[in-house]
Amino acid sequence: MLSKAQIKYIQSLHQKKFRLEAKVFLAEGPKIAAEVLDRAPGRVRLVAALPAWITANASLLERVPAGRVSAVSEAELERISALVTPNEVLLVLEEKEDAWSLPPGSWCLALDAIQDPGNLGTIIRIADWFGVGYLLCSPTCAEWYNPKVIQATMGSFLRVHHAYTDLAAGIASSGRPVYAATLEGEPVTRLTRQPPGYILIGNESKGISPALRALATREVTIPRAGEAESLNAAIATGIILSHLVQPA
Amino acid sequence: MLSKAQIKYIQSLHQKKFRLEAKVFLAEGPKIAAEVLDRAPGRVRLVAALPAWITANASLLERVPAGRVSAVSEAELERISALVTPNEVLLVLEEKEDAWSLPPGSWCLALDAIQDPGNLGTIIRIADWFGVGYLLCSPTCAEWYNPKVIQATMGSFLRVHHAYTDLAAGIASSGRPVYAATLEGEPVTRLTRQPPGYILIGNESKGISPALRALATREVTIPRAGEAESLNAAIATGIILSHLVQPA
Repeated sequence: MLSKAQIKYIQSLHQKKFRLEAKVFLAEGPKIAAEVLDRAPGRVRLVAALPAWITANASLLERVPAGRVSAVSEAELERISALVTPNEVLLVLEEKEDAWSLPPGSWCLALDAIQDPGNLGTIIRIADWFGVGYLLCSPTCAEWYNPKVIQATMGSFLRVHHAYTDLAAGIASSGRPVYAATLEGEPVTRLTRQPPGYILIGNESKGISPALRALATREVTIPRAGEAESLNAAIATGIILSHLVQPA
Repeated sequence: MLSKAQIKYIQSLHQKKFRLEAKVFLAEGPKIAAEVLDRAPGRVRLVAALPAWITANASLLERVPAGRVSAVSEAELERISALVTPNEVLLVLEEKEDAWSLPPGSWCLALDAIQDPGNLGTIIRIADWFGVGYLLCSPTCAEWYNPKVIQATMGSFLRVHHAYTDLAAGIASSGRPVYAATLEGEPVTRLTRQPPGYILIGNESKGISPALRALATREVTIPRAGEAESLNAAIATGIILSHLVQPA
């Protein structure tokens, strides 16, 4: 059972303002919970779960200090959940300071104003699938710790390094290849296994900002044979990575 | 202004049961409305839009019989809309009987139990981008005319032929190549521009049913270099089409 204060605290974490202050965030559902407890038990501040889930996951929960696990009723879970359909377990997790510089020979996705949380989360999952472990976000991107982002990553948020930064400043002096996804570039289908560098993906409706596009060493395009006006930003990211980055 | 009966009628079309009975469905937002009025004005039963939208789109609306256009207030639009955020204009459209047989040399996507409406709509948009004009859905797929499907297609529902059918029966006797997306196939990255045929995409969590998988002449897989457990079904469809079907 949770105290009234705990319920209020968790509910406050649905809002960005309070997440930023507290430097914690929510992750929900049995799949993500199992991954977090397995890989990052030290980041768990609180587990609130249905009694049946707690019983079934006793060995995973041994890694978490006992005072941090609370059994809740379905009604309580509904009150604290940020999901439309609450799903057995909710975690409060600590943000992690993530200081990194891009290692030589690595790919890095750079996202310019990806504003839809579902798109950002799906892109993180795609990066993880293709082994792209580094992601730069412009300050205009959706927030990494938004519950909708975390859910859409399906756990991949644990494995992809990220930073929010002025992309142009971050990329300009790198000396690495910069591939920009545009509508006027070379067909990406002819560019398999390119030398690693940055891949720029632009905003859902406006594309890549001109200042950033000027830094591209190569523009790439997904050839179109039909009539759809555009592809969703996450779909485009998946297709581009599958050509440029593809594993052997 | 709409009558009370009209408002009730449109609200009833949020439900599959009433859509099936009436053989009409909803499409919303200025982008989709402009495409429908341009390409298929004969299918429009009703346009309900804010006065400003009607004024701005007078020439498009000339194609629709006058009695079928109603100016509505924002409050009225909110009452009839199936969207979380109503967007200027709502159309009631007639379903279209779509009798087709797959022409020689054509690609056809075959979807086995794609249950999420957003995924189905996104896949329709992807098919349209790659010029894949034919789509078979198992009866367990989301409903083509679900408002969430229509919205996610961004208008591509107008250009892709579809049918709901027993996929195995439809595919078995075709004599065409059948490519199945599985986790144990050949790397799709090595299979560019294949002979046209069916591409089987399976359910979001269960994949392709065994009876259907047995019909595959080739299984294809998106090579993974990282640790994500899976890719979203629409993302996988986009990547597979970009390799197998890619335009020159």
